[in-house]
Amino acid sequence: MKIFWLISLLVGTSYGRYEPNWESLDARPLPTWYDEAKLGIFIHWGVFSVPSYGNEWFWWNWEGLNITDYGEFMKKNYPPGFQYSDFAPQFTAEFFDPAKWAELFKISGAKYVVLTSKHHEGYTNWPSASSWNWNSLDVGPKRDLVGELADAIRNKTDIRFGIYHSLFEWFNPLFVRDRDNIFHTNDFVTQKTMPELYDLVHRYRPEVIWSDGQWEASYKYWQSTEFLAWLYNDSPVKDTIVTNDRWGMLTPCQHGGYYTCSDRYNPGVLQARKWENAMTIDKVSWGYRRNAKFEDFLTIDELLQTFVSTISCGGNMLMNIGPTKEGTIVPIFEERLTQVGQWLGVVGEAVYSSVPWKHQNDSVTAGVWYTAKAKNIYAFFFDWPQSGSLVLGSAQPISNAANVTMVGTTTPLKWNLLKTTGISVQLDSLPPKQIPNDWIWVLRLEGF
Amino acid sequence: MKIFWLISLLVGTSYGRYEPNWESLDARPLPTWYDEAKLGIFIHWGVFSVPSYGNEWFWWNWEGLNITDYGEFMKKNYPPGFQYSDFAPQFTAEFFDPAKWAELFKISGAKYVVLTSKHHEGYTNWPSASSWNWNSLDVGPKRDLVGELADAIRNKTDIRFGIYHSLFEWFNPLFVRDRDNIFHTNDFVTQKTMPELYDLVHRYRPEVIWSDGQWEASYKYWQSTEFLAWLYNDSPVKDTIVTNDRWGMLTPCQHGGYYTCSDRYNPGVLQARKWENAMTIDKVSWGYRRNAKFEDFLTIDELLQTFVSTISCGGNMLMNIGPTKEGTIVPIFEERLTQVGQWLGVVGEAVYSSVPWKHQNDSVTAGVWYTAKAKNIYAFFFDWPQSGSLVLGSAQPISNAANVTMVGTTTPLKWNLLKTTGISVQLDSLPPKQIPNDWIWVLRLEGF
Amino acid sequence: MKIFWLISLLVGTSYGRYEPNWESLDARPLPTWYDEAKLGIFIHWGVFSVPSYGNEWFWWNWEGLNITDYGEFMKKNYPPGFQYSDFAPQFTAEFFDPAKWAELFKISGAKYVVLTSKHHEGYTNWPSASSWNWNSLDVGPKRDLVGELADAIRNKTDIRFGIYHSLFEWFNPLFVRDRDNIFHTNDFVTQKTMPELYDLVHRYRPEVIWSDGQWEASYKYWQSTEFLAWLYNDSPVKDTIVTNDRWGMLTPCQHGGYYTCSDRYNPGVLQARKWENAMTIDKVSWGYRRNAKFEDFLTIDELLQTFVSTISCGGNMLMNIGPTKEGTIVPIFEERLTQVGQWLGVVGEAVYSSVPWKHQNDSVTAGVWYTAKAKNIYAFFFDWPQSGSLVLGSAQPISNAANVTMVGTTTPLKWNLLKTTGISVQLDSLPPKQIPNDWIWVLRLEGF
Amino acid sequence: MKIFWLISLLVGTSYGRYEPNWESLDARPLPTWYDEAKLGIFIHWGVFSVPSYGNEWFWWNWEGLNITDYGEFMKKNYPPGFQYSDFAPQFTAEFFDPAKWAELFKISGAKYVVLTSKHHEGYTNWPSASSWNWNSLDVGPKRDLVGELADAIRNKTDIRFGIYHSLFEWFNPLFVRDRDNIFHTNDFVTQKTMPELYDLVHRYRPEVIWSDGQWEASYKYWQSTEFLAWLYNDSPVKDTIVTNDRWGMLTPCQHGGYYTCSDRYNPGVLQARKWENAMTIDKVSWGYRRNAKFEDFLTIDELLQTFVSTISCGGNMLMNIGPTKEGTIVPIFEERLTQVGQWLGVVGEAVYSSVPWKHQNDSVTAGVWYTAKAKNIYAFFFDWPQSGSLVLGSAQPISNAANVTMVGTTTPLKWNLLKTTGISVQLDSLPPKQIPNDWIWVLRLEGF
Repeated sequence: MKIFWLISLLVGTSYGRYEPNWESLDARPLPTWYDEAKLGIFIHWGVFSVPSYGNEWFWWNWEGLNITDYGEFMKKNYPPGFQYSDFAPQFTAEFFDPAKWAELFKISGAKYVVLTSKHHEGYTNWPSASSWNWNSLDVGPKRDLVGELADAIRNKTDIRFGIYHSLFEWFNPLFVRDRDNIFHTNDFVTQKTMPELYDLVHRYRPEVIWSDGQWEASYKYWQSTEFLAWLYNDSPVKDTIVTNDRWGMLTPCQHGGYYTCSDRYNPGVLQARKWENAMTIDKVSWGYRRNAKFEDFLTIDELLQTFVSTISCGGNMLMNIGPTKEGTIVPIFEERLTQVGQWLGVVGEAVYSSVPWKHQNDSVTAGVWYTAKAKNIYAFFFDWPQSGSLVLGSAQPISNAANVTMVGTTTPLKWNLLKTTGISVQLDSLPPKQIPNDWIWVLRLEGF
Repeated sequence: MKIFWLISLLVGTSYGRYEPNWESLDARPLPTWYDEAKLGIFIHWGVFSVPSYGNEWFWWNWEGLNITDYGEFMKKNYPPGFQYSDFAPQFTAEFFDPAKWAELFKISGAKYVVLTSKHHEGYTNWPSASSWNWNSLDVGPKRDLVGELADAIRNKTDIRFGIYHSLFEWFNPLFVRDRDNIFHTNDFVTQKTMPELYDLVHRYRPEVIWSDGQWEASYKYWQSTEFLAWLYNDSPVKDTIVTNDRWGMLTPCQHGGYYTCSDRYNPGVLQARKWENAMTIDKVSWGYRRNAKFEDFLTIDELLQTFVSTISCGGNMLMNIGPTKEGTIVPIFEERLTQVGQWLGVVGEAVYSSVPWKHQNDSVTAGVWYTAKAKNIYAFFFDWPQSGSLVLGSAQPISNAANVTMVGTTTPLKWNLLKTTGISVQLDSLPPKQIPNDWIWVLRLEGF
Repeated sequence: MKIFWLISLLVGTSYGRYEPNWESLDARPLPTWYDEAKLGIFIHWGVFSVPSYGNEWFWWNWEGLNITDYGEFMKKNYPPGFQYSDFAPQFTAEFFDPAKWAELFKISGAKYVVLTSKHHEGYTNWPSASSWNWNSLDVGPKRDLVGELADAIRNKTDIRFGIYHSLFEWFNPLFVRDRDNIFHTNDFVTQKTMPELYDLVHRYRPEVIWSDGQWEASYKYWQSTEFLAWLYNDSPVKDTIVTNDRWGMLTPCQHGGYYTCSDRYNPGVLQARKWENAMTIDKVSWGYRRNAKFEDFLTIDELLQTFVSTISCGGNMLMNIGPTKEGTIVPIFEERLTQVGQWLGVVGEAVYSSVPWKHQNDSVTAGVWYTAKAKNIYAFFFDWPQSGSLVLGSAQPISNAANVTMVGTTTPLKWNLLKTTGISVQLDSLPPKQIPNDWIWVLRLEGF
Repeated sequence: MKIFWLISLLVGTSYGRYEPNWESLDARPLPTWYDEAKLGIFIHWGVFSVPSYGNEWFWWNWEGLNITDYGEFMKKNYPPGFQYSDFAPQFTAEFFDPAKWAELFKISGAKYVVLTSKHHEGYTNWPSASSWNWNSLDVGPKRDLVGELADAIRNKTDIRFGIYHSLFEWFNPLFVRDRDNIFHTNDFVTQKTMPELYDLVHRYRPEVIWSDGQWEASYKYWQSTEFLAWLYNDSPVKDTIVTNDRWGMLTPCQHGGYYTCSDRYNPGVLQARKWENAMTIDKVSWGYRRNAKFEDFLTIDELLQTFVSTISCGGNMLMNIGPTKEGTIVPIFEERLTQVGQWLGVVGEAVYSSVPWKHQNDSVTAGVWYTAKAKNIYAFFFDWPQSGSLVLGSAQPISNAANVTMVGTTTPLKWNLLKTTGISVQLDSLPPKQIPNDWIWVLRLEGF
């Protein structure tokens, strides 16, 4: 099964150039850095960070769906006639310190970062020539947010820099007109989407393009295969670029680079193709919410459990934070990122560059997930057993010389073979003081 | 000479369709309504009405030319990083009442109105699909200013509605890029200028297109001749549309419809082609200035003198007002328009549908200008003579039965033939109480 | 009758000190400068200049009377919860140039200026220690408006500087509490009104105190007589200070200095005590209105007619303008002030230091009013007679040597005695060119 | 020593009425609820929550001390002339939900809450008649913040409601004048301080008055003893009211109710009089800081260590949070309060109504502190010993039957008498799974 996994990463060999069709594009091998990275940080930042209410779909919820709560919020707090564009000048980013962000990301242990260059609102976080007066240099921060973060990350860390990009824009009149024409016209794609995508690649050389907003039209309307062929063949990032699967109606989980399928995708079983669990620390929103409650955030336990189950099944986790309109990452997010980094500082060997094992989770004990690396097997367990003994039903030692240690300690743990299958590990032989962390613990199994 | 003038209006006959070249386009006869109208109102309104300082070139003066005074103004009154686009939300137009505007224009006696649909700032006063989030429906008034005014004028009056349109935009990145490419690319024209011009004609059916902002590139870059050929051949306003001469570098005073040559053009001698004196009541600005002084405005005497000298030489006068960001036309403008209307109420017969006479101004007395209509000659005099007798050196009566009356009165005035040439008219024979107006007086000469 | 008038100015002689009772205070002779001045300029400026809508009673109309139109205006243009105090930061006064104001006032021919130091809104235009965070230095202009204007006027002109002051404040909770206590408590007077009035006199040494807002409580509550006794006896301006009659319920037209009785008071008959017609050039408001129409302003004819009828009956005219929140005096006001100044430049001898004549207006011809000075009588006539002859029914020449000239010319006018009474003056003997002004004309009668 | 402590709470007996002098006032026994409560929540909220930068002394740092960083911050982010009062309209509190706050406070285990009714900025969080246009009903939230929170706390919980009040105001011109007069005048105290303090007590019936801002003048200027005498004798809260010691220059740690001495006072030794450690979860500020970092907040370990050492020495801890200008308590604060509540849910018996023991901290092991209640002694230990055995040098069992259990568990722990003094407790006899909490652990000693 480990073999299967490696094969899935190598499917298709790059002989010659890619053709602008899915058969050819889908066959491109995924650059290896991505699978090794395991953890990325997703950043949703834009004009929606100003109302900072509900979620980052604020504009659509308010004026597309006419959801009462949003109308009431506007009526209660803003003057009549206040429009979404009026939020943009308040996107001030006065405290945005990209070097500090980069340091925090480094502390978190993440290996790549994906920033919204443009969400469905159409506002670009870089000075796009095709988005005059609706970009971060002209209105709001008066800064090139994408460029500043890319530079800081590259100067301060060896984290890979990626870009989120929405193909469509809810209210762009060019898009609306194309749609009204049942996509027989494509002014929006030729005047906005494609000029901007090429501009992004030339300017910032991202190593991830996290495409989104594909669902209303086919990939033909979006000209996605042409773009991807160029990206893989001729772009300045052709060797290391990684993309996802959101390139047109019906492409998710079908075509493109790695699969994201749906938001917070976490299938719980091994997948045939590399995939990513894009999820949020604030359980209900990707964009920052000023009125978020403590209970809305994943606890560090929940967050790590999601991560462990994701990587056990071959996924990466792209963990989202929403900065404020002022440009800060609020302490609760800092705390979670710092905690993840602390945990990875202890158990990183079981995570980075690991591959799925033949079993993803244990056959007997719930809350136990596995990874593998070289000759080692790693068992992550979520709950400390009441009895003090952890049963690993899927673990079969080759001999009595097999070794079990808790990652982060040196004391070998006693274990004994169970009658039917697997082993039982004596955790209580470890004094409380030596337990290396407070959350998910990891056992290194050698000789299994 | 009167014949010459009429010919100049008829030069070129419309046989068949116009070709997209100047020879063909220049030959189109000017629709007759325009020459008969004599007086139009020009309206400069846009985001520049918010800072309302210096003049409507505020943005360029500030960030293009870096004029110290503008930088100081911004530094003194706005936060650091405040950009021109941040003015747009303050363009509120809450008091804009297009019906009231239309009534005022009617009172003024003007026969056409020309509104800035888009000035060099690029902000459109109508919901242009090519100017998303930089138009009056998306940001600021949240209204279709062009459409509302067009409707009001058509519902309330028989005034013709026209549109000012700037070909270029100071800071539009697409234009800047085309210019950087020495106009070998034309993304700006194809994505912004032309889509918007066609959109304007289809939506609002203007009868004047007052083009501007042509000077940086040739008409070929601007695709002007193609547009004009369409406008004259196939557009919904092909029969009545009037345009000016600002369609490319070197076209003013050379090609197009009527000539405007330069701002406040008033040559003082008869012109071979129909022309227009586009001028401002606020002597130093087209856009409203919050800190304008009373002395900055033309007196009614100065305004009417400009008008009379203009029509005597075959021009129309397009008299500019600048509304406020709130949508009001301040009382000093209302007063001038009302005064012009009062004066035209008395002397309109000497103005509307008149043609230049063989003499434009008097050979002897300064400040006397002529027009002609049917068999009448009209002499406008600016100053009441100290002596009480007005010498008209250019006026030669056919016989003693020739009649001189002041327009607005019925009492015939005594006159006597001068030795050399012309006549002397006894104004003092008119009691003060009968003098029909306070400003420029007009004599009707019959039998000259 | 002339005698009567002079006596009215001298009623009461200053023997010793004034007592804090009306009998004593009312007996103070009015400083002579005031009667000689004839014309003052009233300035209403405050936070109400920000909404600049309806009139300067905006706050009360909106939240005191709950007038629908005001509620709608707020609802339409401001966010929910926007309060009157939120207007204050927008009172920017960035264009306020007190030296320019002073020059304009000088041009107008006015001899005194009265500025609102504090209107009923309670906001002080100077840094009052008793009005923290609700004064022009703390919020809004961040300038001492009263002090700057006082200095400019004194440096640039010999105009007298005066202060308007409202005793009460609509919504001041201390006042409201005193009123709820049926004025048995007086916290408001002792903590706000009196400290501020004394502060104003000490700081700015005004020569007019134009009191207002007196009507809800008696002068005893307001401690007016104590203040006036101090003002007349011991204040730094005791010799030249002039006050009005609004010092408590029922005091107007009864007690105090000169009488103002009611707003726009213009009785049309001679008054026994010196009085003032406080009126507005904008017919419907004292404060600036952004949406004022040209028709809302008095024409120069109407303005001068009001002035002439006022001084003929012994009054002064205090002519009001409302500056904008930016600190400008809009051109329509500048124009009126300039026109008044032009007119006074011609006819000033008939105005300044004049006294009422025995007849105030003519017994025969409507629109003719008289003043007197030394041995001259002055007849102001509003309409140029159709016949060319002006009948002055009240004018009785002493002999045939009596002289009639138009002020501003030197040519004696022919006149003839009428059968019954008065004379008829031949105006048509004056050539139109010599008529010295366009509005109200004045005849100087010598030997009558 | 326990006796000593109880006595200290009972010093002075209430015979008759209190006199307005310290001898009498200091003798008042502290209402018992306060000592039993142990934990309070301090809330700093005001206009300073708008800039939310540096700390709640923003105004003073900026314009009193002219600290460069503050000037730069203003210059970089606000227009010239922007004043502190201009922040007030942005104090919106749109998400302020007092019921939610009350619930959170209940969860935290705190027994009293103290809200800033007015900080040194002078802005009142209730509609004070003496603070017109500078209070939360007139400007900003347009709500009675004090009243709404008081009601919610009383409706939802049995927490006691208290009020913080600053005697002085940095920039109040009345105070500045009194100070300039070397406090020979007292307009500020009579017109502002005292009316507001009495108003607060009458309106909200607080059970804590947390006085502050006393240091510039003596208690005589502040009229503190008169106020306290009224408060203790005649006020509606005379029976339960608790006050602190900040009533005039030199009074802290000398006079008043309980002692606060200085901010974050934590002496580490038993005090003769009841005292309070007023401290902050954000280590560097009482007011909310938008740009606070995660590392600026006390960890839950640090927070609980401070608390334990405080109560061991007879103090209460008043733990401060700073809400945002929107009215939210950000998740990091929610998390800390929730964690404290979780911990108290386990170990509350060792905290509430406890008294100091004869030893405050252990004679041998650092990081061990004691409390006592009834016959039990409680030992709090901060660090789990490396050896698995905790030495309690100060604990002397009466007999071998003495019992040691971890609070939150039932299993008796093995202990053995040490040679010199004290005992050693075998912690490792407790399986990891049974350890009832992650932070500070508590042993119950019975029979010591």
